[in-house]
Amino acid sequence: MLDLALIVSDPPASVAGVFTKSSVVGAPVEWCREQVRDGVARAIVVNSGISNVAMGARGRRDAAEMAGRTATAIGAEPGEVMVASTGVIGEPLPMPTIRRGIRLAASRLDPAGLSIAAEAIRTTDTFAKSAVATARVDGRTVTVAGIAKGSGMIEPNMATMLAFMLTDADVAPAHLRRVLKASVDASFNRLTIDGETSTSDTVLLLANGAAGNRRLCNANSPGAAAFAVAVEQVAVSLTRDLARDGEGATKLVTVRVTGAANHAQADRAARRIANSMLVKTAIFGGDSNWGRILQTIGAGEVRIALARTVVKVGGVTVFRRGASTGPAARRRSAAKLAAEEVELSVELGVGRAAAHIWTCDLSYDYVRINAEYTT
Amino acid sequence: MLDLALIVSDPPASVAGVFTKSSVVGAPVEWCREQVRDGVARAIVVNSGISNVAMGARGRRDAAEMAGRTATAIGAEPGEVMVASTGVIGEPLPMPTIRRGIRLAASRLDPAGLSIAAEAIRTTDTFAKSAVATARVDGRTVTVAGIAKGSGMIEPNMATMLAFMLTDADVAPAHLRRVLKASVDASFNRLTIDGETSTSDTVLLLANGAAGNRRLCNANSPGAAAFAVAVEQVAVSLTRDLARDGEGATKLVTVRVTGAANHAQADRAARRIANSMLVKTAIFGGDSNWGRILQTIGAGEVRIALARTVVKVGGVTVFRRGASTGPAARRRSAAKLAAEEVELSVELGVGRAAAHIWTCDLSYDYVRINAEYTT
Repeated sequence: MLDLALIVSDPPASVAGVFTKSSVVGAPVEWCREQVRDGVARAIVVNSGISNVAMGARGRRDAAEMAGRTATAIGAEPGEVMVASTGVIGEPLPMPTIRRGIRLAASRLDPAGLSIAAEAIRTTDTFAKSAVATARVDGRTVTVAGIAKGSGMIEPNMATMLAFMLTDADVAPAHLRRVLKASVDASFNRLTIDGETSTSDTVLLLANGAAGNRRLCNANSPGAAAFAVAVEQVAVSLTRDLARDGEGATKLVTVRVTGAANHAQADRAARRIANSMLVKTAIFGGDSNWGRILQTIGAGEVRIALARTVVKVGGVTVFRRGASTGPAARRRSAAKLAAEEVELSVELGVGRAAAHIWTCDLSYDYVRINAEYTT
Repeated sequence: MLDLALIVSDPPASVAGVFTKSSVVGAPVEWCREQVRDGVARAIVVNSGISNVAMGARGRRDAAEMAGRTATAIGAEPGEVMVASTGVIGEPLPMPTIRRGIRLAASRLDPAGLSIAAEAIRTTDTFAKSAVATARVDGRTVTVAGIAKGSGMIEPNMATMLAFMLTDADVAPAHLRRVLKASVDASFNRLTIDGETSTSDTVLLLANGAAGNRRLCNANSPGAAAFAVAVEQVAVSLTRDLARDGEGATKLVTVRVTGAANHAQADRAARRIANSMLVKTAIFGGDSNWGRILQTIGAGEVRIALARTVVKVGGVTVFRRGASTGPAARRRSAAKLAAEEVELSVELGVGRAAAHIWTCDLSYDYVRINAEYTT
């Protein structure tokens, strides 16, 4: 089984990172937060299986050793190596195995190996996730490629998971941070599987300049807009794959809320719906249950004008003008729930703010996976 | 199937109510909020099956008619009749059936009928819930009896459900409100099944004075403390039964958090743990997974000092001084999870505040019940 990934950039790259907001974080997150500050990185080393969380001084030592051994193997400084771990919390890393893995990976670096890395970082994911986009920047074609792993424990404010995006564009670290922040706000931060945030959430973006464009320094640099779009495309594609592959998921669900009093209310309503166990089980059961959608919005103390509210499930209006549109519409919309992608939309009828969230349904398999994970 | 309950008080009773904080509420809740203000009630009429929510003017008319017909049948004013409905949202009440039910129930009033009423208000509950306590007040023995229905959609700020408590104590309405508020804060508001609040949450307390005690007017009235304790006992007993019977629940879970920086943090940590799908599925799976407990606390941005944190599952310490206490302890604690009642406790190590929450585990049956509820 692949369980260690090593990504190396030649030449050294600009780096930006976004990390979990949890108050309990893994040692690798502590390491990366410190090391991304100078804006330069050469490599990312990732192990899957054990997450190196809640291991105290030993955990910090192990994260530093992963960086150090990787640095030695590729001829870099430890501070240029980003570290990530994913898996079970609270067990020590199997360092002898990881040392061997780093040596092995460093001896087998392959320019076409990104899909293998995507395999290696999986835990309970059912498929490897990657995405690519290109942009014209300063007369050059630059490429943005990304891989991600997710599944359970994914939610707001930095959807869990690990995501690594790589580009050959030349970008100044300060601008790279802004591009990453904006793309994460439009993608990973709009994803929730089960309302959880992990201790190890990490998104990194490396830009090594191999494409030879004039360095992007701010939003006015030529090609900066096209580059930002490409990064966001990759981030959104990975996000949708993460939702599609939520633990036990049978569907990718997009929740759209419009007509909210303000953005915070729109966002809250969309997240309430996306995280509602009652809504998620109804979707799994093929039931376009607008009652549960309205109920969870109400429970979130979101302002809603029922007389002007419209609820659509799979594009079919099931609630309008304060009432059900009837059993025939409900049956038509329920039929749409058989698809692998479903949209729930709610017009709240009180304002003009909108928000969307990606999520998945809640199935027997979510319970099975999580009731049997470590036993 | 029993699906309508009628509770009548002779003589007229003082009444106090606590209702859902949802911004979407059923017509019966609107009715009761209005009618409890004068502090006097004669009856409670409850139907199960359809909740009379999101039905606009028709819903308000139907709720008023339920009160009016009940008032006529028992010789009271409509404003003295409290109304509650529970069940599916967004379908009209079957008024012909309800009219028949009210006539029938009014003709069969029975002083020993409380357990039948407890049956009649069930929806997906697997057992009827009732509790009784007594207190010595002013030389008399007063009785407090209560019934409740719950199951899914139960959470903070007024755990869902319907609960009706009745006493023969003589209590002034203003004091009855204070006693009810305090008892609800210590019971129903400390219950969560799936993080949802319903549109129809209603707790009513009726006190008709048949015991003949001198009227309790404030906390200093003789016997006031004993009366408050009895009400709280009934409320807590019903609450624990509601948790035990959460949809698909196999266990009653008590979550205790100590050592928090302040009460809000303690409460947040306990609710995070109680609502975490990852923790709930682990408990169902018999896995004393302290990693998930710490992770969800962290995700809630609760202050925690890992080096001073202690996690116990079923009374067995599984995490202490920043680390696991080892596989043997974990196996011992996992064995405790086979019981029908389980306690999870977490000392956060940063302060002195504490809080507890009652909940249940998350099983395949929760998914089954909620994926197949209306289909």
